[in-house]
Amino acid sequence: MLNKQLIKIGENAVKAANLLSLLKEKTKNKVLKDFLIFIKKEKNKIINANKVDIEKAKKNKISENLINRLLINEKKINSIIHSVQEVIKFKDPTHKIVSKWKRPNGLIINKYTVPIGVIGVIYEARPNVTADVATLCFKSGNAVILRGGSEALMTNKVISELFIKALKKNKIDENCVQLIKNTDRKLVDYLLSKMDKYINVIIPRGGKNLVKKVLEMSSVPIIGHLEGLCHVYIDKYANLEMAKKITLNAKMRNTSICGAAETLLVHKSCIKTHLKPILQLLSISGCEIIGDAIVKKNFKNSIIAKEQDWKTEYLDSKISVKVVNNIEEAIKHINKYGTKHTESIITENKKNAKLFLTNVDSSIVLHNASTQFADGGEFGFGAEVGISTNKLHPRGPVGLEQLTTYKYIIEGNGQIRA
Amino acid sequence: MLNKQLIKIGENAVKAANLLSLLKEKTKNKVLKDFLIFIKKEKNKIINANKVDIEKAKKNKISENLINRLLINEKKINSIIHSVQEVIKFKDPTHKIVSKWKRPNGLIINKYTVPIGVIGVIYEARPNVTADVATLCFKSGNAVILRGGSEALMTNKVISELFIKALKKNKIDENCVQLIKNTDRKLVDYLLSKMDKYINVIIPRGGKNLVKKVLEMSSVPIIGHLEGLCHVYIDKYANLEMAKKITLNAKMRNTSICGAAETLLVHKSCIKTHLKPILQLLSISGCEIIGDAIVKKNFKNSIIAKEQDWKTEYLDSKISVKVVNNIEEAIKHINKYGTKHTESIITENKKNAKLFLTNVDSSIVLHNASTQFADGGEFGFGAEVGISTNKLHPRGPVGLEQLTTYKYIIEGNGQIRA
Repeated sequence: MLNKQLIKIGENAVKAANLLSLLKEKTKNKVLKDFLIFIKKEKNKIINANKVDIEKAKKNKISENLINRLLINEKKINSIIHSVQEVIKFKDPTHKIVSKWKRPNGLIINKYTVPIGVIGVIYEARPNVTADVATLCFKSGNAVILRGGSEALMTNKVISELFIKALKKNKIDENCVQLIKNTDRKLVDYLLSKMDKYINVIIPRGGKNLVKKVLEMSSVPIIGHLEGLCHVYIDKYANLEMAKKITLNAKMRNTSICGAAETLLVHKSCIKTHLKPILQLLSISGCEIIGDAIVKKNFKNSIIAKEQDWKTEYLDSKISVKVVNNIEEAIKHINKYGTKHTESIITENKKNAKLFLTNVDSSIVLHNASTQFADGGEFGFGAEVGISTNKLHPRGPVGLEQLTTYKYIIEGNGQIRA
Repeated sequence: MLNKQLIKIGENAVKAANLLSLLKEKTKNKVLKDFLIFIKKEKNKIINANKVDIEKAKKNKISENLINRLLINEKKINSIIHSVQEVIKFKDPTHKIVSKWKRPNGLIINKYTVPIGVIGVIYEARPNVTADVATLCFKSGNAVILRGGSEALMTNKVISELFIKALKKNKIDENCVQLIKNTDRKLVDYLLSKMDKYINVIIPRGGKNLVKKVLEMSSVPIIGHLEGLCHVYIDKYANLEMAKKITLNAKMRNTSICGAAETLLVHKSCIKTHLKPILQLLSISGCEIIGDAIVKKNFKNSIIAKEQDWKTEYLDSKISVKVVNNIEEAIKHINKYGTKHTESIITENKKNAKLFLTNVDSSIVLHNASTQFADGGEFGFGAEVGISTNKLHPRGPVGLEQLTTYKYIIEGNGQIRA
């Protein structure tokens, strides 16, 4: 019964995706502009629905942290509005010839961008994801099937209904955006394992447990990441002030995002000059220091790290710190313990920077900048559905352009193969 | 025990891949040139090893077809040599900045091409795959783990040893190319399901059963295709001579490749003018016609098609034929029954061509050309490891460039996130 519901949703999505892939940019922007108008007009309706979700969450004694994510207030609505406005400004990434060449036999081969098709998004408590993801998928020509957390159901319903209202107003297939309203968990299992006929890609957005489940169960490709265990490496040739400023920002600006630094690696030749003042700064900012024996010797207010610490994404005011003998050891440590997400080197030495940037096998590598720049907005992508640690496309922040793929269109005049 | 062997192979591959990813193009070409020299020099050794494989295969009463694939003769060695020469000529696709932009805060973001890492290739009887795949993976900077069919073991051993000899001669890590010599089938299961720590991508090359197994079991992304159920659509505005020539070539040039046409769709308005002469031509060329009721009525020498026929990749001198009422019906049929591989429209009408090329959701769509052009060599990619029907990158023929991915290298001068 549940499965039948899902198959219907899948069939509707495929049908909508076929039509949507052909829409003109102007039409798509018109829908998004109407969506904006409806959000502004129905702001109170969203906030009231959210109040119902919040009350229920409080009754169910859901954690403060989760309630903060769940909450939609005036400020969060403005941020949704801003995101949609940004996406409207961005150019349609589909229907572009990205390369074109002529073969000796006269065939003209065009590499042509197209939407991916149907995208399934599975997320947790944050209802703003509903608006962000629907907007990005729609502008990139993809139909989307949304499955949000049950805590946010009332809010998600109102937001998705406003999008559907905008679709209807413009006579576009309303199944371009479908929200699964049934909160039975078995539905997610079926969605992940049996819907490969209808869904081309699954994007999980949420905590590690959610992503792990999706990775294990999904029968279609996934765009996302399990963990962001990001490193900052302070090289022998690091500028001290820069190293302090960047490490503090990379760790403490927001400890709960995937681009937050979790491990600090410091070259042994700058224990006295760099390690101590950086750890002091982190410590007075409220960060717990978990270091190796050399760190402990030089900074008493620290805990001895266990092997497990190099593998732990704290997402908290904690940092593991290791002294390395050389840059090669730093690179080796990152490639061993990291999650191929984002890493930064602080150095004034160009050769070392190049060595690090080339040899560290992560989606994003930075020189003299904070790991917290791992974000679609900061890349100039307008908005993002997340960061991908996939090795294949898309890798890194996933914005509009990353939600497209390509096909080859070949123009002939009767060619047959010899 | 077997698993330990594989883990060792995996570890070796990762280590080799890290070094290989940094090699200069000149060095890589030097290795490939030495490989060529060794192939030429040891031609008889390859042919003799192949004789052992062939004799064993004959004893085991393996089909004629398979023995043809297994056979390595002077001609096949020349084709291997030609492939390697082509790959040497191609530019190294890695270490290229494909795009670069500056953010308002001064950060410079570079999208930089890198190898994928470690590629596992599982294939069947054709030993030339050993040379082709090793060459493509090596030039694109990827370490490769090869698992060929047990029938071809002796031949694969000699060919991979020649590659390893070329690596050693140039003091390159010999684990860039590793052949699994143990033919226990359990090894493949372990390789597919448990080696995701070491292998980034699996490429299956072989029959449908092999690919199906890989698709079901693999814990890492796959580059490949299950079936090529390709269509030719003869539009109302098709030039008759062109339609005859292309249909014959698309079906009969080589019936056993994935780009061979399996279904012919013909617009109802050209039953008399086009359908009959095309079917006559196919029929006298030895092709069996399996058509719908209208086809049967107009071409007696045909069999009535069952529903299953529209879903069947014959890989044989057979074609299913359907008369459609309009181009929309043709597109719908292809998107329903096709495998998103390769389809062609024959028409002199530009509007219809555009409609078909845009709406058919396949990796390769052609206008007035044969579906048998679905091939890396024909695309100008030099050589290919296969055709991918993945929706995400890489899609279509997989040559050197498609064996790479990218990372973002960000240059800062102290930027922190606000």
